Amino acid sequence: MNRKLRFGMIGGGRGAFIGAVHRIAALMDGKAELVAGAFSSDAERSKASGADLFVDPARAYGSYQEMAVAEARRPAADRLDFVVIVTPNHQHFPPAKLFLEQGFNVVCDKPVTFNLAEAKRLRAIVKKTKKVFVLTHNYTGNVMVKQARLLVQSGALGHVRKVIVEYPQGWLSTHLEASGQKQAAWRTDPKRSGAAGCMGDIGTHAENLARYITGLRIDTLCADLSTFVKGRKLDDDGNILLRFKGGAKGILHSSQICVGDENNLNIRVYGEKAALEWHQEYPNELVLKFPDQPRQIWRRGNGYLDPKLAPFTRIPAGHPEGYLEAFANLYLEAFRAIAAEVSGQPIPADCDFPTIDDGVDGMLFIDTVVKSSKAGARWTKFPSA
Amino acid sequence: MNRKLRFGMIGGGRGAFIGAVHRIAALMDGKAELVAGAFSSDAERSKASGADLFVDPARAYGSYQEMAVAEARRPAADRLDFVVIVTPNHQHFPPAKLFLEQGFNVVCDKPVTFNLAEAKRLRAIVKKTKKVFVLTHNYTGNVMVKQARLLVQSGALGHVRKVIVEYPQGWLSTHLEASGQKQAAWRTDPKRSGAAGCMGDIGTHAENLARYITGLRIDTLCADLSTFVKGRKLDDDGNILLRFKGGAKGILHSSQICVGDENNLNIRVYGEKAALEWHQEYPNELVLKFPDQPRQIWRRGNGYLDPKLAPFTRIPAGHPEGYLEAFANLYLEAFRAIAAEVSGQPIPADCDFPTIDDGVDGMLFIDTVVKSSKAGARWTKFPSA
Amino acid sequence: MNRKLRFGMIGGGRGAFIGAVHRIAALMDGKAELVAGAFSSDAERSKASGADLFVDPARAYGSYQEMAVAEARRPAADRLDFVVIVTPNHQHFPPAKLFLEQGFNVVCDKPVTFNLAEAKRLRAIVKKTKKVFVLTHNYTGNVMVKQARLLVQSGALGHVRKVIVEYPQGWLSTHLEASGQKQAAWRTDPKRSGAAGCMGDIGTHAENLARYITGLRIDTLCADLSTFVKGRKLDDDGNILLRFKGGAKGILHSSQICVGDENNLNIRVYGEKAALEWHQEYPNELVLKFPDQPRQIWRRGNGYLDPKLAPFTRIPAGHPEGYLEAFANLYLEAFRAIAAEVSGQPIPADCDFPTIDDGVDGMLFIDTVVKSSKAGARWTKFPSA
Amino acid sequence: MNRKLRFGMIGGGRGAFIGAVHRIAALMDGKAELVAGAFSSDAERSKASGADLFVDPARAYGSYQEMAVAEARRPAADRLDFVVIVTPNHQHFPPAKLFLEQGFNVVCDKPVTFNLAEAKRLRAIVKKTKKVFVLTHNYTGNVMVKQARLLVQSGALGHVRKVIVEYPQGWLSTHLEASGQKQAAWRTDPKRSGAAGCMGDIGTHAENLARYITGLRIDTLCADLSTFVKGRKLDDDGNILLRFKGGAKGILHSSQICVGDENNLNIRVYGEKAALEWHQEYPNELVLKFPDQPRQIWRRGNGYLDPKLAPFTRIPAGHPEGYLEAFANLYLEAFRAIAAEVSGQPIPADCDFPTIDDGVDGMLFIDTVVKSSKAGARWTKFPSA
Repeated sequence: MNRKLRFGMIGGGRGAFIGAVHRIAALMDGKAELVAGAFSSDAERSKASGADLFVDPARAYGSYQEMAVAEARRPAADRLDFVVIVTPNHQHFPPAKLFLEQGFNVVCDKPVTFNLAEAKRLRAIVKKTKKVFVLTHNYTGNVMVKQARLLVQSGALGHVRKVIVEYPQGWLSTHLEASGQKQAAWRTDPKRSGAAGCMGDIGTHAENLARYITGLRIDTLCADLSTFVKGRKLDDDGNILLRFKGGAKGILHSSQICVGDENNLNIRVYGEKAALEWHQEYPNELVLKFPDQPRQIWRRGNGYLDPKLAPFTRIPAGHPEGYLEAFANLYLEAFRAIAAEVSGQPIPADCDFPTIDDGVDGMLFIDTVVKSSKAGARWTKFPSA
Repeated sequence: MNRKLRFGMIGGGRGAFIGAVHRIAALMDGKAELVAGAFSSDAERSKASGADLFVDPARAYGSYQEMAVAEARRPAADRLDFVVIVTPNHQHFPPAKLFLEQGFNVVCDKPVTFNLAEAKRLRAIVKKTKKVFVLTHNYTGNVMVKQARLLVQSGALGHVRKVIVEYPQGWLSTHLEASGQKQAAWRTDPKRSGAAGCMGDIGTHAENLARYITGLRIDTLCADLSTFVKGRKLDDDGNILLRFKGGAKGILHSSQICVGDENNLNIRVYGEKAALEWHQEYPNELVLKFPDQPRQIWRRGNGYLDPKLAPFTRIPAGHPEGYLEAFANLYLEAFRAIAAEVSGQPIPADCDFPTIDDGVDGMLFIDTVVKSSKAGARWTKFPSA
Repeated sequence: MNRKLRFGMIGGGRGAFIGAVHRIAALMDGKAELVAGAFSSDAERSKASGADLFVDPARAYGSYQEMAVAEARRPAADRLDFVVIVTPNHQHFPPAKLFLEQGFNVVCDKPVTFNLAEAKRLRAIVKKTKKVFVLTHNYTGNVMVKQARLLVQSGALGHVRKVIVEYPQGWLSTHLEASGQKQAAWRTDPKRSGAAGCMGDIGTHAENLARYITGLRIDTLCADLSTFVKGRKLDDDGNILLRFKGGAKGILHSSQICVGDENNLNIRVYGEKAALEWHQEYPNELVLKFPDQPRQIWRRGNGYLDPKLAPFTRIPAGHPEGYLEAFANLYLEAFRAIAAEVSGQPIPADCDFPTIDDGVDGMLFIDTVVKSSKAGARWTKFPSA
Repeated sequence: MNRKLRFGMIGGGRGAFIGAVHRIAALMDGKAELVAGAFSSDAERSKASGADLFVDPARAYGSYQEMAVAEARRPAADRLDFVVIVTPNHQHFPPAKLFLEQGFNVVCDKPVTFNLAEAKRLRAIVKKTKKVFVLTHNYTGNVMVKQARLLVQSGALGHVRKVIVEYPQGWLSTHLEASGQKQAAWRTDPKRSGAAGCMGDIGTHAENLARYITGLRIDTLCADLSTFVKGRKLDDDGNILLRFKGGAKGILHSSQICVGDENNLNIRVYGEKAALEWHQEYPNELVLKFPDQPRQIWRRGNGYLDPKLAPFTRIPAGHPEGYLEAFANLYLEAFRAIAAEVSGQPIPADCDFPTIDDGVDGMLFIDTVVKSSKAGARWTKFPSA
């Protein structure tokens, strides 16, 4: 590719959180440029946001539908290579469907859709259109997470017996949505968020991380969801027992009422021979534990890491990378796939980003967890995808 | 009391682990002396252990029964003030009953008995004999754990919503008992350990710690116990969902197959206003987290800690205390109670050590957990004591 | 500014380290675009690097001199707003002088020049041309460093008594330059690096950080520099005692032979009332210590931080930012100044980036340290700027 | 030895700090008993302290002179095996001399004497009397410190290049001695403490620790001592550059005005091949760093530690030991030596405790540091012992 990739955004206008994250992640490596957007469903606001971002006013649209029509008409020379969807959950499926069917590649925030049925429909559309579809479960972009996966795959841990994955946050420990805070408002609204609150928003990240590192699939689970904050309509906390196919056991818990916790995603995987531990808030380190040798701290940027991971580290060891760089790593892989697609090449088989299949898995997770909890926290079969 | 208290031991001979711990804890503060013992059921070995410990050969007995008879006959001037029972679980009740009924105070390792029925019988004996009975759930001897409890009691955390208590170890990740290793052998033997392995040995500590700090009682639980090591007869791992009376939720997990984990007991308590966190392997620190102010690290030995805790700290801040000092703190409280009892004074009401009631609670926990797990990890009511 | 700022680079072609860092930092926030460069003194290599970076081939020059001439001729509509100089130290002054005198704003890597005389000349040029000159002592871009400075300024620590600043690295613990490794080669070469090796490369960062946070200026110092690796021509380690104006004492040590240390810059400041501590490898945290209250961990992204710092944090608490985001924070401030300059507005007085004066201070530091060490580690007066 | 060793104390009465530490350390392992003491120079107070400690009133003396006379007369069957001296520094030499010459073994707190001359005289007395003399530089009793020394000795680090040893405390950051606080009062009084304050009290620990681990001796040093608190008569802070015989460089700094630091002794040793790091406040861990492999955390109680260290660990990995257990480890070795001496056996050559020679080294350190500082922080030769 002898040019930057061109993209547009759906959502992500003024006041949005995740839209800005996507922009930084997409722009950081100098491989893409933002040229269009329907940044808000309010046309004024969309224009203003476009101006903030130095987008040509003609390409700052009042709706994604309008954008799809206008952009599809543009000549190849400045046509969008992909769109990024960063709207609330209930607004993922409609634009994803539309842009895929109009021939655009799509990067979409998680969870993939409002419900499982949409996810399955979207899967069919992706398969049919053969476009690139990237789901931003961004934590798997961390180099040390990738190293963790390689260690499990290599057999360094032996057969995995136990997985503990945690994602506590504290920011919704009060009735914040009542204040009109935008991030809180839609995440706690069943009409925009879907069947789950905390479990949809961050529990799905935890499930995705565990599956990415271990390769294990849940067989059955027992989920005890809670709504601690009075007046809230969706779960703000959940504790889940897991039984994986193949015999491993596990725990997944996630919360948005864990006062004082910020974004404390972490995972421990115990095998027969060794164990590993990773903490999102200290992402440059990976702890390895053994029965009979000193504990090891593997640190990002060192020569002993798998050489395959070199493209995902930008700066030397000891110069901390963080959340944004991990997010940008998903984009680097997305760019590889999209560049191939727009050049008419086959999409490389080894691109390492979450796909529509991960999206369907995430919706199955939400569905199963909610079903288990509603049945009184009963053991519930995790359906096959 | 103008003399050291005199004690004898049941168990704790050569090769034992916890017996030596009790001795160090009891002797450290110069307030007690070891003068007798049935250190082993093998008379030779008991004599040899007694000699190691500078015990008068005449008071190193071949059995606790023999010891009880002989010691009960001694004149008041050198009579034992208490006995310490550090045998495997199935050998807790018989000597405890015997010595209590002979008029001795008793310090007993945990879990209190082999099964719930014994625990309830022992409770009746304790109540009837009015002797001091101390159960060594030693982790509650840690000053920072005591501070944690005071913080909860003071309302600093607000209403408690969630409790996560973990106790992973890794030392039984192989079939160690097959090697004849003594500590492994009895702990994995249902005839000596009781109905549970890992859950009895350390899960009970976790339950005790959570109850001590929060004051919360479990209402129902859902326990998924596992035996990962082939050939093992008892659980070596367990994941438990908890619902407490009053609405809090929780997780308790414990394991002896978590490779590379040593003695990683830790607890997190989340209230409406603040949260706390304590890690046994770094016991001099207590973390407090708030929604809107910097995280705090409270450290042992500082002037801002509750002055009531002064007797439980021996050295200034920054001079780390550890497991043995916490264990010795239980003994300090036991000594207060025993000194009163042997002086014919009422036992002070504020002595802070685990009692026979805690022992019964622990056996209820084991019973309920095993029952839940055997029923397919079903939600099971925690019975009242 | 209703458009992105346009910049060109001097240096930073294929194989460079710090050039890529500057690009990421400059591009991340979508406020600037790279449109020209003399990426290498080898014209072929410069072209190739330009192509990698999607720079118009006509603007990828074979030398910075050629670039200065050509770019100065371009019409205002696509004229460069600033250039970024990321060459080895001996190649800082010539292009800086040239571009400043041609009317361009300049961002320059540290240390500012090859020697003190050049630094002073450059200072005069900056003053005369009135262009923006930004020196990338990037660590002061960290939000928690800025918070540390505000705390000192507010008097929260009281009068400062002691400062300990450390910058150990280990990557030059062998004779790496003999292997031809590019980063090692120029840094250990007195003809390209200047009078100091380790002290120039990273000791200056340490000095700058201490001065930024505390506002203290060194009065005298006693520097013991070493060259541990045989065959090396410049210092690879140094230990320095400091006496600050106003009575505070301090230690600055820095090394590139501290095996296993990565980029372990950290600082501790002790005042009469409180102390603070910051570790570059864990940049999202700032530790505060008090004589009589719990230690505090201030964490990036929280509401209790100074609201003035909001522009320097991109993502919520618990989503770690790192080295690149801190670097980008310097660019954000540089952009504010440059946008004003190119718009003919006065440069805002509160722009928070290191200036040519900091550059001169850094060169004074190198000069004084080398002089002290050469005199047998004698106490040496720190000259006024 | 088929009995406990018998000891008496000089000092350590009510209100003392280090006396209680010695008692716990000496009693913890059940190998010694306290039977006599001159606990205070006030006879009443000494009696009262003796009673607190259950010492026979006849053996609680009003002065150490009285004690020496009376105890020397006792029959072999209950004669003291050793005395423990825990008085302020100026009261170390007189009782040490007296008891050694009366045929008693001696354990003495540090620094060994009030000044260098006394230390040398005491050395002569120890050599002449052939009694055991143990100096309680207790930090070398830590198992992980011993492991660190073994690693250096084994060559695992290669040739040592740099040593950084720190001992900051904060408890004297105000004029505490003016309040009459006993610990502060004598430590800041040149008549009782000696020529140095902070450097004598804790700087000597730091020097001893560095020498113990590395085996390196200081060749020259440059010490900048300060007295920050107004009205204080001795140093409360010091920064020292070190040059070791053999070419290594180093830094030693120590303070008692580092607000919020508790007892933060720590050391880093960098060799050509690897580095190690130990922190007294987290004593169960030893960090190893390498140029090209993951960082290692060695943890007390594990099978990979040197088997020679087994006697110095009481409880399994993960059950934290602390300051008191390390102190008790010195006593264990002292007991080995003393038991041999009183049995008329040769003192084992491998006993691992600090001796009178370490005491002389400590006094040389104080002397040299004070001399250097008074000369304006000039480089000063460290004399041979």
